Amino acid sequence: MAHPVNDHALDVIFRYARSQNGFLGKDVPEILVRAVYDLTKMGPTSANCSPARFVFVHTPAGKQRLLALMSEGNRAKTEAAPWTVIIAHDLAFQEKIPKLFPHAPGAKDWFNNNRDETAFRNAALQGAYLMIAARAIGLDCGPMSGFDMAGVNREFFDTGEGEMKHWRANFICNIGYGDKTKIFDRSPRLEFDEACRIL
Amino acid sequence: MAHPVNDHALDVIFRYARSQNGFLGKDVPEILVRAVYDLTKMGPTSANCSPARFVFVHTPAGKQRLLALMSEGNRAKTEAAPWTVIIAHDLAFQEKIPKLFPHAPGAKDWFNNNRDETAFRNAALQGAYLMIAARAIGLDCGPMSGFDMAGVNREFFDTGEGEMKHWRANFICNIGYGDKTKIFDRSPRLEFDEACRIL
Repeated sequence: MAHPVNDHALDVIFRYARSQNGFLGKDVPEILVRAVYDLTKMGPTSANCSPARFVFVHTPAGKQRLLALMSEGNRAKTEAAPWTVIIAHDLAFQEKIPKLFPHAPGAKDWFNNNRDETAFRNAALQGAYLMIAARAIGLDCGPMSGFDMAGVNREFFDTGEGEMKHWRANFICNIGYGDKTKIFDRSPRLEFDEACRIL
Repeated sequence: MAHPVNDHALDVIFRYARSQNGFLGKDVPEILVRAVYDLTKMGPTSANCSPARFVFVHTPAGKQRLLALMSEGNRAKTEAAPWTVIIAHDLAFQEKIPKLFPHAPGAKDWFNNNRDETAFRNAALQGAYLMIAARAIGLDCGPMSGFDMAGVNREFFDTGEGEMKHWRANFICNIGYGDKTKIFDRSPRLEFDEACRIL
């Protein structure tokens, strides 16, 4: 049993955190992005399979490749954000299981029949950890599903070389310092009894 | 820009948190489960579509329905945990979008061509938020993919009545107070350069 976190932490990671629609022109140093990953990687995945791969797009050249593939409504904010991360999953994630789950290297074969689903689900979990980690260290996020997924896979992954050719986009998230003037009003959430059952 | 959380919070939600393989015989009151949901629901989803549904299994009768469908290695811990939550996604989630995204009720139709994928991805994100929220308030989690998914869907969802017949299992997570004597050693994680690229 852990001592609960303080109220400030709950505010920062859940209660007051908001998806950002604009970003201030303030850079985020690479060391903070690495700190986000170092927290993200600790989150649980199935047999520690850790299938998420993260492409942190930061350079103007990288941004140009991505911007053309974003939905129109997502372009300006993606251009403004200092970092845009493509959360991907590695369809060849099983190759790393002997390293990641050393006490049971045969775990590699546990996913032979549900490889793609396992990659997709666990990379989505890790994408959530990434957003929580970024918020926890004071950054703002703006996750997006509005982009040309086939185009992103073609441009960044399946025609590429080396390990990246097995990666596939899952979702995309801007990271930076949000422009509070561009946040929408908080939308309603489902009540416990609408989304939950107790059996 | 938010003030970062303190180091204790990072420890509790990421660094020292561990997936549990056993649980102490100590109950968790329902009000804490509701508090977990009240944090979980604040996390971001695509157009706030919030497709996750949570079946909190607590009664002996509910546990019996579930235990037979768990992989053998997951049965004892699932029996020991005071709560076991089936994280599901609602394939009819679009019906709630006019409530959840009131400024653009037409968002309901944005997902006509990728309904199942949207439900699956966003419920996985929400499942991650649930685990982080539980840890944040001092509870321990033990997520599992080792169960008969078709069997769980049949037993709890698709032959059911009302809204639950559109729900489908995504993964399952025990919640309670972990038995530290049953934790495995921490497995290695991928280094930044193994899992990430900067472009």
